[in-house]
Amino acid sequence: MHYSSLAVRWCSAAVFGVAVAFFSHVGVAQDAKKPGAEELKKHKTSPGGQYQPSLDVMKDQDVEQPGVKEGVPTLSGAEFQIAKKIYFERCAGCHGVLRKGATGKPLTTKETKELGYDYLKSFITYGSPGGMPNWGTSGQMTDQEIDIMSRYLLNEPPTPPEFGLKEIKATWKVLVAPEDRPSKKMNDIDLDNLFSVTLRDTGEIALIDGGTKKIITIIETGYAVHISRLSASGRYLFVIGRDAKINMIDLWMKTPATVAETKIGLEARSVETSKMKGWEDKYAIAGSYWPPQFVIMDGDTLEPLKIVSTRGMTVDEQDYHPEPRVAAIVGSHYRPEFIVNVKETGKILLVNYEDINNLQVTTIGAERFLHDGGLDSTKRYFLVAANARNTIAVIDTKTGKLVKLVRDGVGQTPHPGRGANFVHPKFGPVWATSHLGDETVALIGTDPEKHPESAWKVVQSLEGQGGGSLFIKTHPNSSNLWVDTPLNPDAEASSSVAVFDINKIDEEYEVIPIGEMSGISEGVRRVVQGEYNRDGTEIWFSVWNGKDQESAIVVIDDKTRKLKTVIRDKRLVTPTGKFNVFNTKNDVY
Amino acid sequence: MHYSSLAVRWCSAAVFGVAVAFFSHVGVAQDAKKPGAEELKKHKTSPGGQYQPSLDVMKDQDVEQPGVKEGVPTLSGAEFQIAKKIYFERCAGCHGVLRKGATGKPLTTKETKELGYDYLKSFITYGSPGGMPNWGTSGQMTDQEIDIMSRYLLNEPPTPPEFGLKEIKATWKVLVAPEDRPSKKMNDIDLDNLFSVTLRDTGEIALIDGGTKKIITIIETGYAVHISRLSASGRYLFVIGRDAKINMIDLWMKTPATVAETKIGLEARSVETSKMKGWEDKYAIAGSYWPPQFVIMDGDTLEPLKIVSTRGMTVDEQDYHPEPRVAAIVGSHYRPEFIVNVKETGKILLVNYEDINNLQVTTIGAERFLHDGGLDSTKRYFLVAANARNTIAVIDTKTGKLVKLVRDGVGQTPHPGRGANFVHPKFGPVWATSHLGDETVALIGTDPEKHPESAWKVVQSLEGQGGGSLFIKTHPNSSNLWVDTPLNPDAEASSSVAVFDINKIDEEYEVIPIGEMSGISEGVRRVVQGEYNRDGTEIWFSVWNGKDQESAIVVIDDKTRKLKTVIRDKRLVTPTGKFNVFNTKNDVY
Repeated sequence: MHYSSLAVRWCSAAVFGVAVAFFSHVGVAQDAKKPGAEELKKHKTSPGGQYQPSLDVMKDQDVEQPGVKEGVPTLSGAEFQIAKKIYFERCAGCHGVLRKGATGKPLTTKETKELGYDYLKSFITYGSPGGMPNWGTSGQMTDQEIDIMSRYLLNEPPTPPEFGLKEIKATWKVLVAPEDRPSKKMNDIDLDNLFSVTLRDTGEIALIDGGTKKIITIIETGYAVHISRLSASGRYLFVIGRDAKINMIDLWMKTPATVAETKIGLEARSVETSKMKGWEDKYAIAGSYWPPQFVIMDGDTLEPLKIVSTRGMTVDEQDYHPEPRVAAIVGSHYRPEFIVNVKETGKILLVNYEDINNLQVTTIGAERFLHDGGLDSTKRYFLVAANARNTIAVIDTKTGKLVKLVRDGVGQTPHPGRGANFVHPKFGPVWATSHLGDETVALIGTDPEKHPESAWKVVQSLEGQGGGSLFIKTHPNSSNLWVDTPLNPDAEASSSVAVFDINKIDEEYEVIPIGEMSGISEGVRRVVQGEYNRDGTEIWFSVWNGKDQESAIVVIDDKTRKLKTVIRDKRLVTPTGKFNVFNTKNDVY
Repeated sequence: MHYSSLAVRWCSAAVFGVAVAFFSHVGVAQDAKKPGAEELKKHKTSPGGQYQPSLDVMKDQDVEQPGVKEGVPTLSGAEFQIAKKIYFERCAGCHGVLRKGATGKPLTTKETKELGYDYLKSFITYGSPGGMPNWGTSGQMTDQEIDIMSRYLLNEPPTPPEFGLKEIKATWKVLVAPEDRPSKKMNDIDLDNLFSVTLRDTGEIALIDGGTKKIITIIETGYAVHISRLSASGRYLFVIGRDAKINMIDLWMKTPATVAETKIGLEARSVETSKMKGWEDKYAIAGSYWPPQFVIMDGDTLEPLKIVSTRGMTVDEQDYHPEPRVAAIVGSHYRPEFIVNVKETGKILLVNYEDINNLQVTTIGAERFLHDGGLDSTKRYFLVAANARNTIAVIDTKTGKLVKLVRDGVGQTPHPGRGANFVHPKFGPVWATSHLGDETVALIGTDPEKHPESAWKVVQSLEGQGGGSLFIKTHPNSSNLWVDTPLNPDAEASSSVAVFDINKIDEEYEVIPIGEMSGISEGVRRVVQGEYNRDGTEIWFSVWNGKDQESAIVVIDDKTRKLKTVIRDKRLVTPTGKFNVFNTKNDVY
């Protein structure tokens, strides 16, 4: 089975039942047959709820309604506003803001005019086995909305506004100036064992003590924080929301809190800090989906310093792409560089931050649709999935060159997160990825010196529970390899994880019913993203339910694979990603 | 007086009377009161003449007519085609393809709607003292055409098509394969003293023997060849037309001829070759105005290898610019790099060609509106004019850093070409530029080691004949400094040149009446671009008349400043730029 189109839904909008909860705030009367002027107005101006990624910047005057042409159905101004908002929230993640397609099919007027109104309406209503959600029959869009969207798609897409230095600076706030921050750690939190946990639908993170399992504080952030990252010193925690809002949190304060924040675009996924010796805590960087660019910021204040557009030519056809989105960013340990992955053009940028006024960027041609990846255990090599091309690109961060495009044996739509490094009993050091599109786990040799015959090849392909996997995890102190399957349509698979014994890697995996262990009985209990504590003795999994349902974090003793504890708290709404400070800071994965 | 808007007309469209000659081929009935369907059709499909930069690529299906909106006047399909063509040929050079403005004012619908139809019509008809030509009263556009253009400007501009690898490859031809070319020089031409002369309006170059002053051959090229450049070995001559067509000419053949050609975009200005030791003749590079990008090509065949977009953020405001055009490109002698100047964003790109699959680019933030420039006498420093900002940016090609933005004492709209290097009796080595916008010649010290107090400052400002200067010239073996003024509205100034004695630099210049010396009595006899022979003993000037008038090249004995000879030949139609092989190859200027 193939689940490739699910990838972006995790990463951008919402998944299945969770989507219903998320979108229910939009305030459109779902059962109204013909919305009156009052309802249309409400939709346009007071969407309610917390998440308004587009409305604050995509104002009427910013985006012009495309011209009316012969044979193309018209939309009223109010309908256009509704369509624009729905498209940005539900469709853009897969199909792209400019509708050029990525994980989803292209939807430019060339395609939509060929398909026609009736086809579009039916497709939106019923979805497809290829991954298009059934927005109509699932009750997530009304007939009225589907009619509007079908007409909208027959018109030219409006281009969302740019977001340059002026716009970023307008959002930038230093809440506590560097000189007003503590000069030493003012709390007795064991920071190395602290967890930053995304509370997806409330737009918050929870800081949880890895020892006591207590919530230390909840911090308001952008919507659906995609990742947490640490400054090289471990003092500052950076989180970025899907709405491109960054919070910089000082972990030395009595109660850790945001000391600076900014918004770097309209939609984003990645933030990272300078890790090279001599450059610790100096710079932060964040990449956005729209506009397609990245920004280098001051590491103390988030002041935006340098914006670089990623618009350019695709790696293979060398044709111009207007929307090459910035996916994963990793800080190099071998050079003063950020490794920036540009999705649609398939290019890996080595951005040298030694002299940002004479900025040196090395562009490595890799493969289109780069998404996520991580370093090998030596931190010298970076492995990244070109997901829609079933390829893992390997670069040498020491020489700044492409090492290999690994294609043979990689499964359907790899989704490594940062991947998992361990020593294979036969093939030596390997880096592993699971897949969205099939049940396999690919192990790739990463030691060209001592295991040259295994290097940059899929040396083994394990069989897991099924497709729909997002994350794989192990730890240097563990012999377990954990594989989640939260997007698998089978309820048992999605609410449990598989665990392999690295020392007996050819043996069958064990299934651990995390959802059941949580003690929660309602909801889909999707189990996602194992994260180790500092010592690698326990692994935490999120049990991710709808916004109005109970969720939890289940802590497993790694050695015995038995339940250690369940963190249940009414504040833990839709927990997803969890980031242990020590492991994240040191790229231990 | 200010002549800044003239700059682009030299470099892009046409100037004054010459413009009439140029545009008269377009085939629009200039005295027709109301063109009938037949005439409109003729305009659209058979413009006649040779120059059809837009029609071959900007076909109806490529560019969609913008949507019709309330309150915006409509155009018929035929009118839209006329307007598109006229805009591209007459307006885009100054105002930009996307109408964002550069040397000319922005003409987006935000501006044009405020101005309104009547104002636009009057402005196009009568021009302005600020530099807008009087297209109507000069007879270059009919009332009908001005009406169409005024309506066209109130509509959204169409975006011209992209030009990626596929499109470039479709135009790429290797006429003589490398293995079929001679293995040694097959002629007895003194190549070091050969001149490549642009015949602007016929779309040709003439190769003229510097000794005999005879035309060796005429070679068909793109329209209005902007520059000639040599491969490092001196064997291959590269020329690029305004229509982005490149000819690669093998000077070793019995009669030098084109061995490869390609078209790299819709509009272009610059071509260069790899000059670094060890990389001679390996690569060529060309930059285009539209699309805004550059392409690295194989130095033997012009095969397009790597295309890099220049779209991105401006250097000062850091806001996104959709049309940052590539102006001058220079090959570094200190690193395996091309120095690429991006106009609208004000960035200087050091493009390292050691490994084009892992392409390293250093982006130096300089100043907006970079246009043309050249190396100092040591070839280590590169000086480039940000013309609309009255600034000269200096970079160190050895360290890859910005040295200085020279602003104080630079005149109005500097236009150095490549500039002129000589040793000032008091200040040591200087680099000089004349100006479009005023009569001054700025001398900038270039020797930070032995003359640190003079380095990167305007040490002296000479007073020349007037504004409207395009080129300044001297030679290491000469003590003369020649300054042309072809765009000066005064007929005597535009048909003569000023010459300074470098050893008595404070003394008044002498005026040499080149136009008169040519023996031609008709036309404006615009005198443009002095070029030295190999030894620096004589300097050649073009006497540039209209396409249907006689032009000539006047050769002056440099020592005596007296006429040596006049090259008159009916094939010398609109000669402009001249490039001596030895001096061009070795960056002697």
